[in-house]
Amino acid sequence: MSGSNDALPTSPMRFVAKARDPGSSARRGTLTTSRGEIETPVFMPVGTRATVTGLTPDDLLAVDAPIVLANTYHLLLRPGPEVFRRVGGIHAFMRWPRAVLTDSGGYQIFSQPAERTITEDGARFRSYVDGRIHHLTPETSIEIQTAIGSDIMMVLDECINATVDETAVRAAADRTHRWALRSLAARANPAQALFAIVQGGLVPALRRQSAQFLTDHPFDGFAIGGLAVGDTRAQREDMTAFTASLLPASAPRYLMGVGTPPDLLYAIGCGVDMFDCVLPTHLAWQGTAFTSTGRVRITRGAHGAQDEPLDARCSCSTCRTYLRSYVHHLFKCGEPLGPRLLSIHNLHYYVQLMRDARAAIDEGRYAAFAREQLARIDRHEPAAVRA
Amino acid sequence: MSGSNDALPTSPMRFVAKARDPGSSARRGTLTTSRGEIETPVFMPVGTRATVTGLTPDDLLAVDAPIVLANTYHLLLRPGPEVFRRVGGIHAFMRWPRAVLTDSGGYQIFSQPAERTITEDGARFRSYVDGRIHHLTPETSIEIQTAIGSDIMMVLDECINATVDETAVRAAADRTHRWALRSLAARANPAQALFAIVQGGLVPALRRQSAQFLTDHPFDGFAIGGLAVGDTRAQREDMTAFTASLLPASAPRYLMGVGTPPDLLYAIGCGVDMFDCVLPTHLAWQGTAFTSTGRVRITRGAHGAQDEPLDARCSCSTCRTYLRSYVHHLFKCGEPLGPRLLSIHNLHYYVQLMRDARAAIDEGRYAAFAREQLARIDRHEPAAVRA
Repeated sequence: MSGSNDALPTSPMRFVAKARDPGSSARRGTLTTSRGEIETPVFMPVGTRATVTGLTPDDLLAVDAPIVLANTYHLLLRPGPEVFRRVGGIHAFMRWPRAVLTDSGGYQIFSQPAERTITEDGARFRSYVDGRIHHLTPETSIEIQTAIGSDIMMVLDECINATVDETAVRAAADRTHRWALRSLAARANPAQALFAIVQGGLVPALRRQSAQFLTDHPFDGFAIGGLAVGDTRAQREDMTAFTASLLPASAPRYLMGVGTPPDLLYAIGCGVDMFDCVLPTHLAWQGTAFTSTGRVRITRGAHGAQDEPLDARCSCSTCRTYLRSYVHHLFKCGEPLGPRLLSIHNLHYYVQLMRDARAAIDEGRYAAFAREQLARIDRHEPAAVRA
Repeated sequence: MSGSNDALPTSPMRFVAKARDPGSSARRGTLTTSRGEIETPVFMPVGTRATVTGLTPDDLLAVDAPIVLANTYHLLLRPGPEVFRRVGGIHAFMRWPRAVLTDSGGYQIFSQPAERTITEDGARFRSYVDGRIHHLTPETSIEIQTAIGSDIMMVLDECINATVDETAVRAAADRTHRWALRSLAARANPAQALFAIVQGGLVPALRRQSAQFLTDHPFDGFAIGGLAVGDTRAQREDMTAFTASLLPASAPRYLMGVGTPPDLLYAIGCGVDMFDCVLPTHLAWQGTAFTSTGRVRITRGAHGAQDEPLDARCSCSTCRTYLRSYVHHLFKCGEPLGPRLLSIHNLHYYVQLMRDARAAIDEGRYAAFAREQLARIDRHEPAAVRA
């Protein structure tokens, strides 16, 4: 309960890419932060407001999540950067001992268009908390992320709908590049890694330009941004594969906010290393579980008569402890233990999927693994693994 | 995950009253069920629908709750008794290894007057789940409680507003007595204890008659019912003290549904052994914490600037782990981890209050202990301990 970080970062992030799958572009790696090693490919649970909804850090350790994501935009508005300066960062604030990645707030500014203006300087918007006007610029985003003390910071980017016309896409990508350099210059704590974000919408030439520009600068990793914002699954897959192929092998690749299990299986096959998505926790709160045989809506009446675990193949605490009929009962009663148990299960599912994917890459059988998984979990929405 | 109870009850409940406080009527006891010993005075967290809202059995074990309460009326409507027969009772259903007490449903029928009729046979009412008509009689209540497999069952009683006229109070008490005998006759599993409920409103003569009638029959314990239903605190205290004094020393005494900390401190001084109340969990969901210096509304702005534990004297996992500013932040964001952390804290507070009360009785200083506690926690609403 001290006011300072238990472990002050002393060394910058290191990334080592190891095994490469012979049948795809999938690869294994290790991302070393001052808060431990992260085996990649990795899924990062989303803890937007310094909490993964309904779960404690102990719950996240129990599912063995190595890193969580938080959001600069939301944390700027509440609780504000001051508390992070006071207590020594987000790890001390939320009592999370492992790594944290902070998104810069670019996507939130894009997705909440009311009362905001974006200029070359940055974004100006009205707080949904108290109505005050805030400025989020590349420099203030880094300043806030420095206060938050995340292990990996993201540059502020200008995110736009992937399907708008090419001129607008080009303008946003160019601005994203200028903002990325300002972010790099604003970086105050060398122990916090900084990732750039490749934009360029659905235009291959712009994606290539964006990747070429950004990879010329000393960023610690590269994200693929601007997907899952109005694009189709096929467009998203094509752009993921293409953009991943443009990024250096020596740095981690992070596909932002894209994340059904088929999306992940596909993108891993393209050589993507890092993922985040709200789906496992959001769907848990709606009563949907990811299982080894596909999605299960636990509120369906039939589950009330089933006294087996949610997923007999699953080793999470929910499946080891509770009956399907009990979880069904909790949801029918609107009891919050239901979403809590499904959140644990769904995060365990994602973490286990990544663990299985890593093992498959290690053994050189990732392409077959991804095909098998897709056949089981997503029969009605098949996606070829990039071979 | 087996379909049968792990530990089938084989012996009836035993109660041994031990130390008696010299300065009050407070007493120490041990209630032995087939699921372990329960030290009294004891507080029972309320798990109406086979879940203490938001918490797992492990959370309840961590605060060392020895017994939880569930509700026959609500469990009849959802999930229905069949699932309990299938899986072998509520312990297997909710994965709770310790004792369970089931309330009979009398209070719920009283408090949900829409579309129900009460006759000598029992209550007839419409389900809020599916609109079906149900009959809850003394016999069906015991039948359902037998299926639920609780360690302590309650008789169906006719609960009325404590302040109605004496004729109505007398009629309800008389019917409660007839129903109590029918409940006793309907008991099928001798390993499940059965408690009677003393009624009689605020009329001492009726309370006396009720106690005399019921204590002539072989119930395993006696509850004080019909309080905290329209009465004032002074009326409730007088009636608790009076009724407790009428009950045999050899059986446990249970004050139903009454439960601020001052209420408990007072009633323990009257010789009450068992308590339940929704307050610690309900108030937790509203952002109110019980602390060693009184109630704290965590949503108040000042708490956002306080980086100490909620209660520095408290040893619960919430206070050992989290900052006040963090719990404040969770509530301001509407994040469900906030109520979860406060629920753990508040239940720990109640369990610890009972532990401290037991130690004070053991050491013959309960009257002074209760006075000290009341002075600290409830300065604006003092209540004399019965000396």
